Amino acid sequence: MSRSSVNRPAIVLLSGGLDSTTCLAIARHDGFDPIALSFRYGQRHDVELVRAAEIATTAGCEHVVVDLDLGAFGGSALTDPSIAVPKHDRVDDVDESIPVTYVPARNTVMLSISMSLAEVRGAADVYIGVNAVDYSGYPDCRPEFIEAFEAMANLATRAAVEGRRFTVHAPLLRLSKAEIVQRAVELGVDLSRTVSCYDPSSEGRACGRCDACLLRARGFAEAGVVDPALLR
Amino acid sequence: MSRSSVNRPAIVLLSGGLDSTTCLAIARHDGFDPIALSFRYGQRHDVELVRAAEIATTAGCEHVVVDLDLGAFGGSALTDPSIAVPKHDRVDDVDESIPVTYVPARNTVMLSISMSLAEVRGAADVYIGVNAVDYSGYPDCRPEFIEAFEAMANLATRAAVEGRRFTVHAPLLRLSKAEIVQRAVELGVDLSRTVSCYDPSSEGRACGRCDACLLRARGFAEAGVVDPALLR
Repeated sequence: MSRSSVNRPAIVLLSGGLDSTTCLAIARHDGFDPIALSFRYGQRHDVELVRAAEIATTAGCEHVVVDLDLGAFGGSALTDPSIAVPKHDRVDDVDESIPVTYVPARNTVMLSISMSLAEVRGAADVYIGVNAVDYSGYPDCRPEFIEAFEAMANLATRAAVEGRRFTVHAPLLRLSKAEIVQRAVELGVDLSRTVSCYDPSSEGRACGRCDACLLRARGFAEAGVVDPALLR
Repeated sequence: MSRSSVNRPAIVLLSGGLDSTTCLAIARHDGFDPIALSFRYGQRHDVELVRAAEIATTAGCEHVVVDLDLGAFGGSALTDPSIAVPKHDRVDDVDESIPVTYVPARNTVMLSISMSLAEVRGAADVYIGVNAVDYSGYPDCRPEFIEAFEAMANLATRAAVEGRRFTVHAPLLRLSKAEIVQRAVELGVDLSRTVSCYDPSSEGRACGRCDACLLRARGFAEAGVVDPALLR
C-alpha cells in the first residue's frame, strides 16, 4: 500500500549508499511515492541494510527487503570472504577494468525483482542509482544495458502487455560523483547515514581505502562539501 | 565444479515438471554438462523441489537451489494462499488470457539469476523450458521476450564484455505439449517423477483439474503415451 493516494508509486533500489539515497530523493522530487527495495544478498556485512532501513524511515517510505543469497555462488569480493577487497592509498590507483567487487549480474537480478514488485504494486517505474562515470568497469552500469533491460521488461510483464509502459529511471547515469553530491545537497538529502564502503566496520565506519571510499571522498572534495558521514 | 571436464557447462532451469525435465535431457543431448538450478520462491508446496532434486540426481548433474521469496510480494495464485488455483473439468475451459497462476516477472528473475550462476561457473549457455504454445497467456513465455532477454544479457555481463556470447536456449518454445512428450520419450527421459500440477497433495499427487494438469493430460493423450506419473 502506498502512503499517499495522490502520487503514483515507484520502486527505488536502495542500498544505503550515497547514490541510491540520492536516487530516492530524486524519485520523490519527480512526483512519485517511492517504495524502497533492498536485498540481503550475501553481503559481507549487514550495516548497509540497517542504514537503508533508517534512510527509508527518514524519507517516510515503505522498505521491502528481499532475501537473495547470491553469495552462495561466490565469484565476487563483495560476497565471497575468500576474495580480498582491494585497498589503495590514492584514488588514482583505482583500477578501471572490471573490479573483483563486481557481483555477477547483480543489477540485472535486482532490476528483475524490482519489476516483479512493481507489477504486484501497480507501479510502472523503477529507479536505480547506477552511474557510468565513476564505475565504467561494471558492464551493467552502462546506458546501453539500461536501455536493453527496459526493452526486455516491456515484453515481459502483464502490465506491458496491457499497455502500461515500464520505465527504468537511472538519473545518476551520466553524473560524476561530485555532481551526485551536489544534487543530494540541492534536494536536502541527509547523507550522514549513507555508507558507501565495501568493507566497513561492524558499526558502519568506512575503511577509507577501498575503491568506493576513495571515489566518494574525491566526489565530496570536488563538490566542495564535507562528507557528513565523517562528522558523526 | 562440473562432473565432466570434456563438456562445456550449461545452466538448466529445473522446476521438476515435464517441460524443464525434458529440457535438462536436451541440454545433455546438445553436448553440455548441465548444472540444474531451482528456486524456493514461496511456492505453496515443496514437492516440486524434492522432485527436482531427484531428477537432477537421476540425470547425474549438480543441483543448485536458490532461496528467493517472491511469495512475500503476493500477486499470484502460485505463491499467495489467498488466491485460489483455478480448477476446471475440461481442458477446453482453460482460460487463454493471463492466468492468476502467473508469477510477476518470474522468468525474468530466474533467467537473471541463471546469468549470475553461469558467469560464476564459466558457462555461457542457459536452458529454459518455456513454451509459447500451451502458455500463450504468459507474456514472458513469448519468443520475443527470450530474444530481448538475450540481447540484454549480452550487454550485462563481464563474459559478454570479454566476447563470450551468452545464449538462452528455449528448445520447447515452439513445441506443443504432445511434441514435448514425444521428445522426452525419444530421449529416454524418466517422466515418472515429474510434477506439473499447480496444486498437488503433499505427497505430490496431481489434482487433475488445474490448467497445468489438464494441459499435461491432453499432451500425453495426443502423443499416444500413458503418463508414467499416473502409474506410480
